[in-house]
Amino acid sequence: MSYLRHLEACNRFDPERFLPLLMAGRRVGFVRRDNARLLEAFPRIFNLSGEAVALADTIQGADAATRALGEATDGLIRAGMLEKRRDELFEITDGWGGPLLFELDRAAIPFFGARAYGVHLNGWRPGSDGPDLWIGKRAKDKKIAPGQLDNIVAGGMGEGYGPWETLLKEAAEEADIPEALAIRAHAVGAIRYRMELAEGMRDDVMFVYDLETPADFAPRNTDGEIEDFRLLSARECLRLVRETDDFKFNVNLVLVDFGIRHGLIVPEEPDYLALLEGLHGGLVRGGQ
Amino acid sequence: MSYLRHLEACNRFDPERFLPLLMAGRRVGFVRRDNARLLEAFPRIFNLSGEAVALADTIQGADAATRALGEATDGLIRAGMLEKRRDELFEITDGWGGPLLFELDRAAIPFFGARAYGVHLNGWRPGSDGPDLWIGKRAKDKKIAPGQLDNIVAGGMGEGYGPWETLLKEAAEEADIPEALAIRAHAVGAIRYRMELAEGMRDDVMFVYDLETPADFAPRNTDGEIEDFRLLSARECLRLVRETDDFKFNVNLVLVDFGIRHGLIVPEEPDYLALLEGLHGGLVRGGQ
Repeated sequence: MSYLRHLEACNRFDPERFLPLLMAGRRVGFVRRDNARLLEAFPRIFNLSGEAVALADTIQGADAATRALGEATDGLIRAGMLEKRRDELFEITDGWGGPLLFELDRAAIPFFGARAYGVHLNGWRPGSDGPDLWIGKRAKDKKIAPGQLDNIVAGGMGEGYGPWETLLKEAAEEADIPEALAIRAHAVGAIRYRMELAEGMRDDVMFVYDLETPADFAPRNTDGEIEDFRLLSARECLRLVRETDDFKFNVNLVLVDFGIRHGLIVPEEPDYLALLEGLHGGLVRGGQ
Repeated sequence: MSYLRHLEACNRFDPERFLPLLMAGRRVGFVRRDNARLLEAFPRIFNLSGEAVALADTIQGADAATRALGEATDGLIRAGMLEKRRDELFEITDGWGGPLLFELDRAAIPFFGARAYGVHLNGWRPGSDGPDLWIGKRAKDKKIAPGQLDNIVAGGMGEGYGPWETLLKEAAEEADIPEALAIRAHAVGAIRYRMELAEGMRDDVMFVYDLETPADFAPRNTDGEIEDFRLLSARECLRLVRETDDFKFNVNLVLVDFGIRHGLIVPEEPDYLALLEGLHGGLVRGGQ
């Protein structure tokens, strides 16, 4: 068992099985070839070929693209392809820091294979054998990874929220971390992966933060998404990463990154460079 | 001025200008096309074609390859291509953690474009505005980057030394860090780049360590390689990285990595993901 298998699992994506989603000639997503036929129902929105799904040239600007893709999202819900709107819009930009291309309901992100950004927080404190980590157990009714282990805080970046605002919002909602404590978190990096799903794919960037929590602090979930929190040594977390699938798929990557930055996974590990490259886009297929 | 320009400078490498150096069909280095003719003087060691420089099939095993490349190194010194032996052998392996292929005098590493490993240490302590960093000023008689700013400790990984042993050895030699303090350093990652040089190229991996130094500690150079040490705030170091070329070329990368891990460069920076990918091989050309 190895760390690397989680990186490989999160990057299981074969671009041959997808069509690029184009807007004004730029790739803004990926649509599974077998899903693309569902878009034939929207001839005024999409031009389909065997090579690509292109947003019609008549759709100009971010507002028009948002409306058109919203219409398609509702159609895909009616067709039974998507469950329901999440009523949470994600901003789809032309690369990180690039201009807004359109907004898309969170429910439709995997279908269109649009890049999504989120935050993950490592809540830790000094323990008897290196750092201890606050680990959440996801509620059994979660759609994704029910009952699996998770970071103390994680969440997607919705419309109008940057990474830092998302972190503070989710810290309050998911773990009842007071803002006076949450603002002591600091950014430590980001992790990328691209992964095929039944309904499409995830093209995810996780911005990662560390927060050293005081001895008298314990997280408490307030939104029903986490069943309980426990304190585990980081070494024990890394053993679970290596030997089990107890952690949610992408949380394994956050823990490997934590282990590398905190000297728990060392250069003497033969996979060390492969892990670092794999965390930062080295296994991502299908171009930028 | 930007951080990214240093990543681009350290990855200025056009594989078209080089021939792969092959051993039993595997690429183990790169030789500049205009330098390759110098190897015609060793017909029993190298087979040259317009496509590659191949170690002769008659050279079997690491010992024979070490002897043959040592002979070529001496020939290149006689020809005036290389200055002199450094009498420091580097282990050339089949990838990190892979078996030893041969050993090569440090002086010949750039000519043959073999992958070299080294360590860099960030010596820091809490300051009034985030971390302060111990920065060395390189001696004016150094061949590489004379008078430029450097990490508190840095060095190449010679024969028989792993990353950790190299770190402890260099910490003692370069900064007089007592072993009891040096062992409190911890690994935090690695940085890769591939860069063309007048005599060939550098294909470098830097293993990076952080060490929090106590208030009563000050480094002291003992091997003449550093003129003096000074304490600079990490924010001031990053300003120098952005706005000047005061730091040795590859130390800029180590400081960008430090800034990312310590939350001084934040996700809101438009280049954030490009920096992370660029530090971890995303700009490296010419394959593994």
